[in-house]
This record gives sequence, C-alpha cells and structure tokens, in this order.
Amino acid sequence: MISHRKAFLVGLLGVLWLFSIAVTATQAADPLPSWKEGDTKQAIMTFVEAVATPGTPNFVPPAERIATFDNDGTLWTEHPTYTQLAFALDRVKALAPQHPEWQVTQPFKAVLDNDLKALGAAGEKGLVELVMASHAGMSTAEFETIVTDWLGKARHARFNRPYTELVYQPMVELLAFLRANGFKTFIVSGGGVEFMRPWTEKIYGIPPEQVVGSTIKTQYEMQDGKPVLMRLPQIDFIDDKAGKPVGINKFIGRRPILAVGNSAGDREMLEWTGAGNGPRLMMLVFHDDARREYAYGPANGLPDTHFGAFPQSLMEEARQKGWGVISMKGDWARVYAFDK
Amino acid sequence: MISHRKAFLVGLLGVLWLFSIAVTATQAADPLPSWKEGDTKQAIMTFVEAVATPGTPNFVPPAERIATFDNDGTLWTEHPTYTQLAFALDRVKALAPQHPEWQVTQPFKAVLDNDLKALGAAGEKGLVELVMASHAGMSTAEFETIVTDWLGKARHARFNRPYTELVYQPMVELLAFLRANGFKTFIVSGGGVEFMRPWTEKIYGIPPEQVVGSTIKTQYEMQDGKPVLMRLPQIDFIDDKAGKPVGINKFIGRRPILAVGNSAGDREMLEWTGAGNGPRLMMLVFHDDARREYAYGPANGLPDTHFGAFPQSLMEEARQKGWGVISMKGDWARVYAFDK
Repeated sequence: MISHRKAFLVGLLGVLWLFSIAVTATQAADPLPSWKEGDTKQAIMTFVEAVATPGTPNFVPPAERIATFDNDGTLWTEHPTYTQLAFALDRVKALAPQHPEWQVTQPFKAVLDNDLKALGAAGEKGLVELVMASHAGMSTAEFETIVTDWLGKARHARFNRPYTELVYQPMVELLAFLRANGFKTFIVSGGGVEFMRPWTEKIYGIPPEQVVGSTIKTQYEMQDGKPVLMRLPQIDFIDDKAGKPVGINKFIGRRPILAVGNSAGDREMLEWTGAGNGPRLMMLVFHDDARREYAYGPANGLPDTHFGAFPQSLMEEARQKGWGVISMKGDWARVYAFDK
Repeated sequence: MISHRKAFLVGLLGVLWLFSIAVTATQAADPLPSWKEGDTKQAIMTFVEAVATPGTPNFVPPAERIATFDNDGTLWTEHPTYTQLAFALDRVKALAPQHPEWQVTQPFKAVLDNDLKALGAAGEKGLVELVMASHAGMSTAEFETIVTDWLGKARHARFNRPYTELVYQPMVELLAFLRANGFKTFIVSGGGVEFMRPWTEKIYGIPPEQVVGSTIKTQYEMQDGKPVLMRLPQIDFIDDKAGKPVGINKFIGRRPILAVGNSAGDREMLEWTGAGNGPRLMMLVFHDDARREYAYGPANGLPDTHFGAFPQSLMEEARQKGWGVISMKGDWARVYAFDK
C-alpha cells in the first residue's frame, strides 16, 4: 500500500505537470534572438507587452492588433533589383523564342541584350510593358506554378542562394513574436500579390489572405467546362505610396497599430498608422550594412539607388514623428538565417 | 493528518478538473440547434467532421478551411429591398435640403416622391447615381459613422426591428460551428464592403478583414495635417456574379472549400468553389417561407422579384452538381433569433 505522502505527491505532480505547460508558454526564451540588445529591441518589447497586457492603459483587444509590413527591403532583400523584376526579366527571356518581334522592339530588346541603359530609357511605361508580357495571359493557377518553379531555380547573383533564403531573420522573429502576442500580421507591398502569395505562408507564416499588394485584372472564364481566372494585361491597383493606406482600407478595413517599412513608398502607410488613436509603433528599416547586405539612402549620405530609396526627408519625418529607425548594422545580430 | 486515500483524491481531483475542461470543449451540445434534423443538417455535420478529423482521407489542414458566405439573402433578409438600397434612399432624403436641384432631377426626384415606378425606369444607371450621391464625398471614417447611426435608427417596415436583428439564426450558428472547427469565415457579397464592415464582427463574428464586397475608389489626402481617405464617386469593383471568384482570388487568394449563397449572383462563387480538389460543400438558401420571412424564386413557381432572384436554371445546376438547397421552411427550426 502506498503511503499517504506518496499518494498525495502522485496526484499533485499531475497538476504541476499540467500547470508547467502554461508556465513554459509564457516564460519563453528571448523571442528576438537576432536583435541586438538596445533601444530598438527594447521599444518593440515594451510596445508589445503594453498592448497585450489586459487591464493596463495601453491594452488593445486582440482583434485590433493589426500589424502591416512592407515586403521588398523590409522582409527580404531588394538589391541589386526587386526580386519580382528579376523574375520579369527571366520570364521575358524564357518567352522570347515565341516572340521573334521582341528582338527588334523595346523594351524587350533591351532585356534580351542585357542593355540596362536602354531598359532605363524605357521608363515606367517600358516597365509596365514588361510586367504585362511576363505576368499576364495565363490563368492564376498557371502563374502560381510559374512563380513557384522560378523561385525554386533562381539564385541571387551575390549570395548564390534562392531569393526566399534572403529574408531577414530578425523580421521573421518579429512576425512570430507579434503573432504569439495575438497580432494578425499582414504584408502590404508594392509588389504583385500573386507573386507573393505562393510562398509567404511557408517563409513568413503569413497566409495568402493576409497579403496585400498590387494587382492586375482577372477575368472568370469557362475552359473545357472548368472555371479559370485569366490574368489580363491591365493594371488593377498599385499598392505603393498613397496607395498603401488605400490598400489597407480596401483589403483589411481596419487601421494597423504597428507598421514597418523601409522606403519612401512606405511613408503614407506609417502616417496612416500613426494617425489612429491609442498606442502605435511605426518603424523603418535602414539599409546601412554593405558588408552583410547593402547600404543605400540617399539619407545619411549613403548611395542613392533605384530600388527602395530612403530620402533624407523620410529620415526627418521619422525623427519628427517618433518613428523608429532600425539600423541593419547596429540593431541586427544576424541579417539572414544563414549568417553566423 | 489526512488519510492517504484522501490525499490521493485531492491531487487526482485537480488532474480530473483540468482534463474536464478539455472534455467539455469537445463534448458540446448540438452546435446547430436552429436547424431541423434532416439531410441538410446531416450533410453539414458530416462534411465538417470529415475535413476536421486528422488522419482521415478528407482531412483539410486548418489554413485551407476557407468558407465564404454571400450576405444579402444568405445571412440576412434582403426583402422587400436590399438593406443597403434602403440606406441609400434614406440618405438621399436626408441630403435633399442641401440639393434643391434633386427636386427636379431624376432619379432623385423619384426617391423624394417615393415614386417606385420612376425609380425603376431610371435603371442601373440611376441606381449608380443614387449610390454615388449617398455613399461618396465623405471620408471613410465619416461614412462608418453614417452607416452605424443609420443602422441604429432604421427599422424594417414589416418586422419593425433593426436590420441587424434580421440575420438568420441558423447561419449565425453555422458560422460559429465552422470557426469552432478551424474554419476561417468570410463574407463575399455584392454589397458595399464599407457598408458591412462596421457591424459584421459584432453580428456575425466576422472581422473587417474577412469581408469581401463591392468597393468605390478612395483617395489618400491630408486635411489639417491629418491623413484621411476620401470616398470618390467612382466604382472600383463589383463583387457579384463572375466578380465573386475574382474578388475571392483578389482578397482571399485561396479557393474556399465551403460556399453558401442564395441567388444567381452566387452561381460563379459556387462553381469556383466546387472546381477545387478535395472535399467541397456548396449550398444555396432557398426562400420558401412567406410566413416567417419571404418566398421568392422564380424557381419552383415562386414569385419572381427584383432582389435575390433564384432562377430555375440555378435549381437545375444545383441538382446536377450536388449543391445543397437549404429550404428555409423545411430546414430551419427558427429563422431569426427572436422567433419562438
């Protein structure tokens, strides 16, 4: 016969074991190990604790904990060109045999000749033509396959890795930390929504329905008795600059309480986020790390590049409005998951 | 000193109490009490159990459990007119003092004279004019206030109740049952998205970001140093008929596995849902209950009305494709929460 002490302990241990599950969940290790200790990390931790602690003045109900993130330059590398542009150029080359006229027509000739100067001269109109030729004329299902296949094969010229490995590990941790604290995380990107949706769930934990981006028009058609959505060569919506608050309102319908971007294209998203009532956190990633990633501005005297420009006026607005500026060099212990 | 038996029991009871929480959660009472026992209810229960049971052939991962619901006539009453049209007419009357020209201009004169014949003669063009006059020209925040105020005051002519009480209790239960089984529930309505978002979370448990609908264009502006989104008198997107799969793809980006509608406007949403792989459930609410709600077709010889037409061809497509037809009269024990 077991002693009364032993009997009590057997039962009690069961209770303690069950409670330990709850305790482990709240007493987690550092949720942001790739962020260096400092003001930026502290600001994030303080904000998240404040909005997620019931009964405190800055508590925000979970349903209103909407966080929006730009993608290019905020969650993954956007240099030397936006990944989607690299995709478009590869796609034009792949389709060239079916389009002999491209050999003599701009901007296609420039792509086939790798003539960046002529490509630049084609301007925005030329860029739209390239996107339409490479992103339209197929069904949404076919486009998803094309994107997935390309991402599986394409490699970044400098890092010689798939583009989906060039995501910022500190941001992946931040997304997970926010979700663990009841936030709903969204992408709000100038990039094409159907270029992102095939992989954002696996890479960022963000499901398709939480990806907001630029869209082209689609049309419902019956093909051999089966419905398809055909991608038409017409821009539907550009989710950039003043289009970002428009996109947030249209697709999400609730104002974020946290927003992160990295360029002039994110200015209005941060303004819109900051103009709401209650606690807010707005941040901008500043690319000042040429060794581990890239360094570009033109703010703070860094080079002015074509992709993801961060002008001095944005740096000043950030200072005025109290937006955090994340220094890639100073705030991140690692940039990529493969960094040591 | 307590006996060993008593000591053991004290500990054990703690364990049992903790386990009982889990057991209570799974051994719930009938989740659909407002549905009569029968084939329709059984089909729902069987489908949900099949997709939510891991290790069985029809299991669907939670992330893919997307369910889309039409709103007017599927979740709430759409007779004698769509609620949003009642809102537009009231709004035109409220704004009339600021628009003396409306006294002599159609379709406004028709609204002010309660001249339904002249209103009908104004056709779709007239309807768009009414929507633009009543739904645009203010900020998104102002429009939300206008909608909320109107819904608080307006009463349905027959039931003399707020429109938000004229939601179908069986559907409210179905939405909750689906969510309890890991589904993400969406509205996909021809109605205006900003007419629905102010109240869908409270009434249906569906947050703003899961409401897909028709949109008008908005524009980001600074007013007195504060950003606003102004509603422009331009249609952006019509989320009806072939627009529903387009809207589902644009806003959700994942094909539903369950879709419910009630009219010809939902045909393409059900076709699109049914064309995916794996288990699917498509249903149509059929309004055959003139006593508790309304009866209209023209299918099955019921009256042909202006709002929410269910043609015979849709009934035939439902039969051919195995879409469930929910008889309001035969399948629902209650229509509204206030029914006895």
